[in-house]
Amino acid sequence: MPVPPLEKKNSAAGCAPRDFRMTSFDWRIGNEVIPFYMGSDCAADVAQKLAAMNADRFFIVADEAIWKMHGAPYERAVGAVAPTAFMPYGGGEAGKTLAAIEQLAAKLIDSGISRRSVLVAMGGGVIGNITGLTASLLFRGIRFVQLPTTLLAMHDSVTSLKQGVNCNGGKNILGTFHAPSSVFIDLRFLSTLPAQQIRGGLIELVKNALILGGDYARQVTESLTAFRADPKSHDWAALVNLGLTAKRTLVQDDPRERGHAMILEYGHTIGHALELAYVGQLSHGEAIAWGMRCAAWISHRLGYMTDSALAVHDRYLALLDFPPKPNGPFKLGELRARLQRDNKRGYLPPGNEGMVAMILLNEPGVVLNGTNPYPLTLVPRDVVDEALDHLAREWQSHVATGLAPDEAGFAR
Amino acid sequence: MPVPPLEKKNSAAGCAPRDFRMTSFDWRIGNEVIPFYMGSDCAADVAQKLAAMNADRFFIVADEAIWKMHGAPYERAVGAVAPTAFMPYGGGEAGKTLAAIEQLAAKLIDSGISRRSVLVAMGGGVIGNITGLTASLLFRGIRFVQLPTTLLAMHDSVTSLKQGVNCNGGKNILGTFHAPSSVFIDLRFLSTLPAQQIRGGLIELVKNALILGGDYARQVTESLTAFRADPKSHDWAALVNLGLTAKRTLVQDDPRERGHAMILEYGHTIGHALELAYVGQLSHGEAIAWGMRCAAWISHRLGYMTDSALAVHDRYLALLDFPPKPNGPFKLGELRARLQRDNKRGYLPPGNEGMVAMILLNEPGVVLNGTNPYPLTLVPRDVVDEALDHLAREWQSHVATGLAPDEAGFAR
Repeated sequence: MPVPPLEKKNSAAGCAPRDFRMTSFDWRIGNEVIPFYMGSDCAADVAQKLAAMNADRFFIVADEAIWKMHGAPYERAVGAVAPTAFMPYGGGEAGKTLAAIEQLAAKLIDSGISRRSVLVAMGGGVIGNITGLTASLLFRGIRFVQLPTTLLAMHDSVTSLKQGVNCNGGKNILGTFHAPSSVFIDLRFLSTLPAQQIRGGLIELVKNALILGGDYARQVTESLTAFRADPKSHDWAALVNLGLTAKRTLVQDDPRERGHAMILEYGHTIGHALELAYVGQLSHGEAIAWGMRCAAWISHRLGYMTDSALAVHDRYLALLDFPPKPNGPFKLGELRARLQRDNKRGYLPPGNEGMVAMILLNEPGVVLNGTNPYPLTLVPRDVVDEALDHLAREWQSHVATGLAPDEAGFAR
Repeated sequence: MPVPPLEKKNSAAGCAPRDFRMTSFDWRIGNEVIPFYMGSDCAADVAQKLAAMNADRFFIVADEAIWKMHGAPYERAVGAVAPTAFMPYGGGEAGKTLAAIEQLAAKLIDSGISRRSVLVAMGGGVIGNITGLTASLLFRGIRFVQLPTTLLAMHDSVTSLKQGVNCNGGKNILGTFHAPSSVFIDLRFLSTLPAQQIRGGLIELVKNALILGGDYARQVTESLTAFRADPKSHDWAALVNLGLTAKRTLVQDDPRERGHAMILEYGHTIGHALELAYVGQLSHGEAIAWGMRCAAWISHRLGYMTDSALAVHDRYLALLDFPPKPNGPFKLGELRARLQRDNKRGYLPPGNEGMVAMILLNEPGVVLNGTNPYPLTLVPRDVVDEALDHLAREWQSHVATGLAPDEAGFAR
């Protein structure tokens, strides 16, 4: 599987005082250069790097379940460097609010946090966001490091400077830009990751293939085909690197993701609305899969995407088992209300209050308005409503889960 | 009164399309250059400048009382530029929390805020902080302007990039750096300002005199002596400029106020603790006056400040009627707990957990350790406790308010 390797700074045979086994590379994003490290069973290596930070205390923010499974070696190794405390966060996406940040900050203050302390985000994107935003606000900015535990976080969330929480139905509508001091990718966490989370991470690779096309899309196709054929024997490092390569291409010169890098949000307009409306039922990646389906339907409906391009688009989505539809009635009203609060509002000129700004494709690999300062297309609200109606009909007609897109009537 | 005028970009006879009457100057702080405007009865001028911001909506955050007194001309003038809504905030210093930010943000989202909207902070430092932090977080940063209504805000709060809220007893412990797009100083607001707020603004001038000394101290002495002799006929613009001059000297090359500019925090360590412990009874400036008194006592107690330097220090404090002591019992336990959460913790090397980091003076105009990267002095906790005990005795022995420091036994 020909994945172009990321440039290496040192490797297993490195120059560290002890046998440092993680590979490392620099992640440049705007003016920031963030050291990334990758390996398996890395607690001792991570602790060695943390020791160089000269922190007075470490606070590891994690979900109780992850902490129980993977916390012990980290608690031991990091605790040998400086006093280390576990700070549980169990609120998930639904609890990702400023109130949660305030609560966590209050506990950190009680526990003696100072400007010299370092937060460690041990978890997926939600833990990364909660920890990153808290670090960004405490004393107006202290250091934090990322220790991602999901596939999606490893190749996607940790590469962004964007920290954020939800507010009043708006996804990630309150936040800051704050760079982690380092990112440690310990592939060991993937050994206990539920299938739904693996799928969520792989779906973002499909999204990257759809926006980038070309050789990149070919590599994703090969990797995912191999993964489906034999899910047991695969190369996690290669899959993570494949995701990182796409992000690297797009965000390094657009660190605030407010220009061209915005195409990474393909499928996210309706996807975010679905994620928040069906929290607990759809993971982020699964919601994005449905969001991409809706986006392609809209592009086709508006005449930007041909029948054959749509068919190719759907074959990409079919690289993975399509996510299950959520249970219960279709939440049309809630979805409409959430779309009115999409955080891409305001990128486009005034007088477009009836429109929804979306990333659309002409065909896989070709972003509509991709060369504009903002690669967005204004979609009339009634067309978005039509797409939601179609989605509703599709979900109503397919009671079974695990629906593959080529079995679905949607978008035909 | 020889106050050096700030450099002027244009003036009353300016080049604006209509008769623009405010004077203006650029305020440089780090890499930011913020246009400042000053005048009296300025709603039309402010609206003219806001029109150039191409905003889709304006939201004016203000206290109900200020809005009732001064809102109408602004609502009319700004409302003629773009849809304008009043967003009340009445929580004061005690309500300055992330929860308040979340509540305000939710209301703004309900009211259709977008990335192109502009927040207007019409108020004192608390409104400025609440509005600035909300603007900083919404969509990860939208624009806001400052329309200060107190003397302190006009020459002090608005010059800082620091936005912040309190958390768990820590003053301004959560926040960001976010620059206002412009600052509009309308001296008309001072006509309705209570005496306590005027005193609060003047006390910071005394603080500036104490840390800067020299010619600046002489100017403050002259201005305040003239002000006391005839409080009715004074030049507000000159007093505001006097404050701005001090801030300008210190913050323009230390925009995060983490180096030399930290000396502006003189009196703030114990002052902040007093402000939060006696919220509603002591204004910010009044608390800082007591804080400076304690700082000088500590410096004298540790042998850094001579008897005669202390006497000179007290004469500066006597330039104003000293603030009243708060009612009720002395809150020693609370003050001690708050001092353990002072946000200067962590600037100094580890292993100093028993110490409090403070700005101290050798004498007026000479900051102890003033040439160090951090102009801080470590004070043993028991000496801070002694200072608090002295303060307690002073407050207990003087039931009368309006106590001038030269009448007090404190620090003798």
